Amino acid sequence: MADTDGARVTDDGGARPDHRTVTAKVLALLGAFTPATPELTLTELARRSGLSLPTAHRRAAELVEWGALERDADGRYRVGLRLWEVASLAPRGLGLREAAMPFLEDLYEVTRENVQLAVREGHELVFVERIAGRHAIPVLTRVGGRFDLHSTGVGLVLLAHAPVDVQDAVLRGPLRAYTPLTVTDPVRLRARLAEIRRRGYAVSEGQVTTDALSVAAPVRAVDGAVVAAVSLVVRLDEARPAALAPLVQAAARGISRALSSAPRRR
Amino acid sequence: MADTDGARVTDDGGARPDHRTVTAKVLALLGAFTPATPELTLTELARRSGLSLPTAHRRAAELVEWGALERDADGRYRVGLRLWEVASLAPRGLGLREAAMPFLEDLYEVTRENVQLAVREGHELVFVERIAGRHAIPVLTRVGGRFDLHSTGVGLVLLAHAPVDVQDAVLRGPLRAYTPLTVTDPVRLRARLAEIRRRGYAVSEGQVTTDALSVAAPVRAVDGAVVAAVSLVVRLDEARPAALAPLVQAAARGISRALSSAPRRR
Repeated sequence: MADTDGARVTDDGGARPDHRTVTAKVLALLGAFTPATPELTLTELARRSGLSLPTAHRRAAELVEWGALERDADGRYRVGLRLWEVASLAPRGLGLREAAMPFLEDLYEVTRENVQLAVREGHELVFVERIAGRHAIPVLTRVGGRFDLHSTGVGLVLLAHAPVDVQDAVLRGPLRAYTPLTVTDPVRLRARLAEIRRRGYAVSEGQVTTDALSVAAPVRAVDGAVVAAVSLVVRLDEARPAALAPLVQAAARGISRALSSAPRRR
Repeated sequence: MADTDGARVTDDGGARPDHRTVTAKVLALLGAFTPATPELTLTELARRSGLSLPTAHRRAAELVEWGALERDADGRYRVGLRLWEVASLAPRGLGLREAAMPFLEDLYEVTRENVQLAVREGHELVFVERIAGRHAIPVLTRVGGRFDLHSTGVGLVLLAHAPVDVQDAVLRGPLRAYTPLTVTDPVRLRARLAEIRRRGYAVSEGQVTTDALSVAAPVRAVDGAVVAAVSLVVRLDEARPAALAPLVQAAARGISRALSSAPRRR
């Protein structure tokens, strides 16, 4: 089948000929959907994926037929359940989540606070699970959502155990200051990361919102590599980090053990 | 860009020329991953997607570059976290789940039993969420997994409110008998569906496993359409369906209300 696999992705849109491969164009259609834009008209879809209207229309129709996209009553496109089904097989998504869930629930039951599970993806983290009681402090996170590594408890744990080149790139910044307490100085941040590795857990006090504190601990694979981080987010004024750390660490160890003993997957 | 968008999908594999479009081939690569085969070698990936080894290799490399697939240490392919991130935007997947979660947690807290949330996809259901206590009765379900519509409580609710052509197709069978109690007679099943619509909830007693009972109720969109079902699965010998039904119905109503009042999405 003739297509342009030899060509490379150039920039999006513009008047220049589009040398992207068909695969890249299909992926650009999927990547057009973001937390801020979960539903798109055909025009928006074409613009955001850098495709012409007829091409976007034709390929989107194929994606709808397969179930990767769905159309609502107004004709807007959104991500389809069939894609979600396939994606649920991602070992670092629902696979990890299934192994972790009993421990996250235990953590939630004994604290009634926010419980979070996250993995590192490049220079950011992705929240894989979140359990929050009705009366727990509101947090900024969303399952499937991204966040930076230098501010939250889970982020700091993941950054502390990231490869050196990732740490260097993140520390080079820019590092967003969410509150006056957010540590954005690279030297102080590097010292914190060393302390987190030494203590085995991270505490983030008022660094994302001034009223919240999070305590996080690393989840490890069989080979000892840190593959995820689990945290509790509580109200800063009620927080006793020293009391919370063993709880979070025990949950992280439980998840690590479950990952090691899990069958290769169903 | 030359490709074969005019051609239609034929059968998989075989010696015949592959007239599928590139989009269809990319989707075939994604669709090769199933709950039974979440990790695939290149050879398996090529065979299951009906592509030649070089084509599978080239396109899989593009999917890995984007993050739709990942490779493990042994070179096996698996679904990538980036695809899971995009898929988390599916309104019928995590979107629904986020709206439902507080009510599912309430249901779990007051019962400590299995709580399930499912949507209909064609002639089957897909589990969107599941919360299970450590001491709850083991169930056969998995988040992102499929199940048929005629046996479980959630399935019966979704079938009872499905379009007539879906009901007819499902009732034509074959209908799997999981236990001697599974209702597979189309006439009896049709009567049950009418009763479920009338009563507003479904009870499935020992029809999936002989030791479990589920009570399920419909979740409705603003226009009254049934978009999901929520259930409690409990041990058959301890079950009091009449006591559980109001609990499940209240949770289903709460979720329906949350869906109606939810902003169009973040």
